[in-house]
Amino acid sequence: MISESTSKDDFVLTISCKDRPGIVHAVTGAIARGGGNVVQSQQFGDPESGLFFMRVEISCASGVETLESGISRVAESFSMQWKLYSAGKRVRTILMVSKEGHCLADLLYRQDFQGLPIEVVAVVGNHPDLAPIAQFHSVPFICKPVTNQNKAQVEAELLELIDAEGVELVVLARYMQILSDSICRRLAGSVINIHHSFLPSFKGARPYAQAHARGVKLIGATAHYVTADLDEGPIIEQDVTRVDHADSTLDMVRLGQDVERRVLARAVKFHAEHRVLLNGARTVVFS
Amino acid sequence: MISESTSKDDFVLTISCKDRPGIVHAVTGAIARGGGNVVQSQQFGDPESGLFFMRVEISCASGVETLESGISRVAESFSMQWKLYSAGKRVRTILMVSKEGHCLADLLYRQDFQGLPIEVVAVVGNHPDLAPIAQFHSVPFICKPVTNQNKAQVEAELLELIDAEGVELVVLARYMQILSDSICRRLAGSVINIHHSFLPSFKGARPYAQAHARGVKLIGATAHYVTADLDEGPIIEQDVTRVDHADSTLDMVRLGQDVERRVLARAVKFHAEHRVLLNGARTVVFS
Amino acid sequence: MISESTSKDDFVLTISCKDRPGIVHAVTGAIARGGGNVVQSQQFGDPESGLFFMRVEISCASGVETLESGISRVAESFSMQWKLYSAGKRVRTILMVSKEGHCLADLLYRQDFQGLPIEVVAVVGNHPDLAPIAQFHSVPFICKPVTNQNKAQVEAELLELIDAEGVELVVLARYMQILSDSICRRLAGSVINIHHSFLPSFKGARPYAQAHARGVKLIGATAHYVTADLDEGPIIEQDVTRVDHADSTLDMVRLGQDVERRVLARAVKFHAEHRVLLNGARTVVFS
Amino acid sequence: MISESTSKDDFVLTISCKDRPGIVHAVTGAIARGGGNVVQSQQFGDPESGLFFMRVEISCASGVETLESGISRVAESFSMQWKLYSAGKRVRTILMVSKEGHCLADLLYRQDFQGLPIEVVAVVGNHPDLAPIAQFHSVPFICKPVTNQNKAQVEAELLELIDAEGVELVVLARYMQILSDSICRRLAGSVINIHHSFLPSFKGARPYAQAHARGVKLIGATAHYVTADLDEGPIIEQDVTRVDHADSTLDMVRLGQDVERRVLARAVKFHAEHRVLLNGARTVVFS
Repeated sequence: MISESTSKDDFVLTISCKDRPGIVHAVTGAIARGGGNVVQSQQFGDPESGLFFMRVEISCASGVETLESGISRVAESFSMQWKLYSAGKRVRTILMVSKEGHCLADLLYRQDFQGLPIEVVAVVGNHPDLAPIAQFHSVPFICKPVTNQNKAQVEAELLELIDAEGVELVVLARYMQILSDSICRRLAGSVINIHHSFLPSFKGARPYAQAHARGVKLIGATAHYVTADLDEGPIIEQDVTRVDHADSTLDMVRLGQDVERRVLARAVKFHAEHRVLLNGARTVVFS
Repeated sequence: MISESTSKDDFVLTISCKDRPGIVHAVTGAIARGGGNVVQSQQFGDPESGLFFMRVEISCASGVETLESGISRVAESFSMQWKLYSAGKRVRTILMVSKEGHCLADLLYRQDFQGLPIEVVAVVGNHPDLAPIAQFHSVPFICKPVTNQNKAQVEAELLELIDAEGVELVVLARYMQILSDSICRRLAGSVINIHHSFLPSFKGARPYAQAHARGVKLIGATAHYVTADLDEGPIIEQDVTRVDHADSTLDMVRLGQDVERRVLARAVKFHAEHRVLLNGARTVVFS
Repeated sequence: MISESTSKDDFVLTISCKDRPGIVHAVTGAIARGGGNVVQSQQFGDPESGLFFMRVEISCASGVETLESGISRVAESFSMQWKLYSAGKRVRTILMVSKEGHCLADLLYRQDFQGLPIEVVAVVGNHPDLAPIAQFHSVPFICKPVTNQNKAQVEAELLELIDAEGVELVVLARYMQILSDSICRRLAGSVINIHHSFLPSFKGARPYAQAHARGVKLIGATAHYVTADLDEGPIIEQDVTRVDHADSTLDMVRLGQDVERRVLARAVKFHAEHRVLLNGARTVVFS
Repeated sequence: MISESTSKDDFVLTISCKDRPGIVHAVTGAIARGGGNVVQSQQFGDPESGLFFMRVEISCASGVETLESGISRVAESFSMQWKLYSAGKRVRTILMVSKEGHCLADLLYRQDFQGLPIEVVAVVGNHPDLAPIAQFHSVPFICKPVTNQNKAQVEAELLELIDAEGVELVVLARYMQILSDSICRRLAGSVINIHHSFLPSFKGARPYAQAHARGVKLIGATAHYVTADLDEGPIIEQDVTRVDHADSTLDMVRLGQDVERRVLARAVKFHAEHRVLLNGARTVVFS
């Protein structure tokens, strides 16, 4: 894992491309010629999609320019999608919320005290309820109530904010509004939602009530990238907890909240450490 | 838990009835007057259904007759559904299988060496493949291939066998045939199936292929009572295991088999120890 | 579980005594005569210690006096240790902390938003660092630095506070001071500590460093009652999380913090819902 | 994971050496020049020990000779410890047992039906009890009772068998004898034991009785390489399961057996797929 000790000389490279022989050798050659050392690395070739995925942690004292230009040349010859990140740099993030604060409080706590590598530039809520939590962590709270009438306007303002602040990640931390198709497409791969059920079970509204009615013995939560196809985006992380016959729907809501915040925090950490790569409708997670 | 130390003086009483004051007092009074001692007991009143459920482990050296007649009188006055079991008595069981032997081998192993309180009187397979496993454990294997033509006949023979052998429990241990509605109704509450997915996700055929295509991060299994409504019967037990992007459908099948056998064994144990009571479409499990 | 719906008519009765026939009948008789109804109940007879344990949730609209006097008479005749609690009443609690805030923040959040039935009357810290978290939740923060010289004095003041405020529970929420034997004995059964290892592994100092050096694949946390015998008190709850070779000691500290706060919150909930009974050096937890 | 689809063209390369720049590039260069393609790969540099670890799955249609000689040259220049395995080849294995058969039955079942890549050439027992399980799976059972007098002789015969059969792995599948220091050193890194506790808790004899007396809420099992230092060898895998106050020592034994067989099967799979590398007293597991 990436620890505090990351310095300005530490980088993370992610790559995906069509699989063929020689990729790792070419990439590590460019890294070596650029003065870099491979600290940790993982590769995965998907026999079904024929795609190759790679994540490399690089230590490089001689600066990023030579490293980047060398990788760029290799990337071109293999038609790679690739990104080179400063390992130490926190991901600029907006958290969107409604009235339930368990995920918000947890993410802000982890940002401040547990090294979660995000920098929350604003909390956006469609209700004012959670402003105190943002304020306690010295993060601006922006209240944007949403109605059928102003929804397009609110999303336009959100996009402006994203551009103005250089936001790289939007986390729907129990935000109870559905984003429009157009903003989903515009922000593809950079919006993470926490769904309060073990998808694909109990899609849609009131999943804990559904779970209670069905008499399940485990309830869960799912963190996924948001797509225009509701509750169908690529899954990043899931977990469950045990329930029994004596648990009411309200008990399940509370037990579920613990799973939600844990799953969302893990997904945000994976994303912010550049461990998640998209493989069609699925993810590769180099955890 | 019920251990080896159960003797002919140990009993398990299960009760369900409409909830109202005085039930526990009346029942424990009948037990005390019958010479019994409450070793362990659990009660649950469901505020939604208004039903009351109780399971009592009783030690009673003075024989079952007085105990039974006393309970019977109380049961009548409260309109209870109730059963009194000898705690030491193994539940007479048929295991039904097709070609996959992991659940069969596990249940027979637990019967022989781990005190699972079932007595398997026969293994019924629609293929001959698993006969050696049954034979290794000295259990008769009956091969009953099923076709569209002979299905009714096979089920009739199965019912005959159940009656002739005093069978109390049928376990579908990866039996790949669907039972008819009529036999489901006839055996309601005494047929347990293991579904190789975390229901209600991935109902129907090839759940691991569905799970792989969806890119889930956990796969699971569900043990439930069989009803005419396929994959919708009351759930007894569920569990999951973690998978990742590198796991093929075949990998998931194998990882899933471990969960299947574990979940089914737990469900059969709960049932055979008389810990499962039906509460409409759900179960109360006094684990 | 006890939900919001508990009213002033809901009570929890806990009992322990030498096991013998007739206990449940006698107790439930007293409840019925007192106008109470058994909502939920669990019993356990320990064959090793010969002790019997019982927890009953009672609904009683006719007031507590008759109920209490009836139970009292039965309790006397069976030489019971017993307590009758108002189910809705929050347990008056002091949280003690040092510099790490994850458990403190979590417990206060659960008190305010998740129905954890405690009422934190003060946070006591031997460092000032966590005062803002207490203040955010409108709880007084009392800073009591501890030295070798003033330790007896600090404990005396703590006992005064406990008496003055009617405190029923003290939670050591990552409090890095060792309580004296005398205060441990004085508060026996009402001080809960979270130890940051899976006891009895890695007792003593720096358990995560010990765990890392040993190369374990799981790390854990243990919530236990505090006794004069350090790290040996009766265990209430434990849990673990997975680690691997790439996790540094610091990574383990952070992963461990998630387990610590989860385990401590569960233990406090069990205690505050009167689900934990002492059985010598062990606990009975009616979860 | 390595699936059935492995062919004679599939290889696994494991490497460990002092960490320095250029290792991955040099190794993948040798692979590319040898006609190989990197299918999957993982690397780990341990900042504490200064060692580098690598596991590569290689597909190479042009035969192993060029591949091997190229890797050999690179390995020499980096002073690597390395091995090149045929991915499809099952690891020749001896299972050693006493009277408890749950691990034995499970490993043989997985060998026969779940693709566990071991080839069990013999089961060696110090009691005759488990011969039928070996015979059912068509594996020779060799009974070697051990006494203080004949222990050296038995170990000498075991070493002869290992040499004669080309045995690469010895699994102590609940073998209740302690191996001598000399045989531990002789077979270092190729003997796996399952300890029936969550090490380092409850070392030594009767761990479940110790766990019960301590009142723990989870019990576990640990698979580790055997060293002369009893119960202190490098840990490969661990897991736990929940227990409660009602579980007797015997209940714990049975619940523990499920964990033991699961943990041991995972450890053997990791080893047989060449995923485990030694890092001093710890392991790197590329799972």
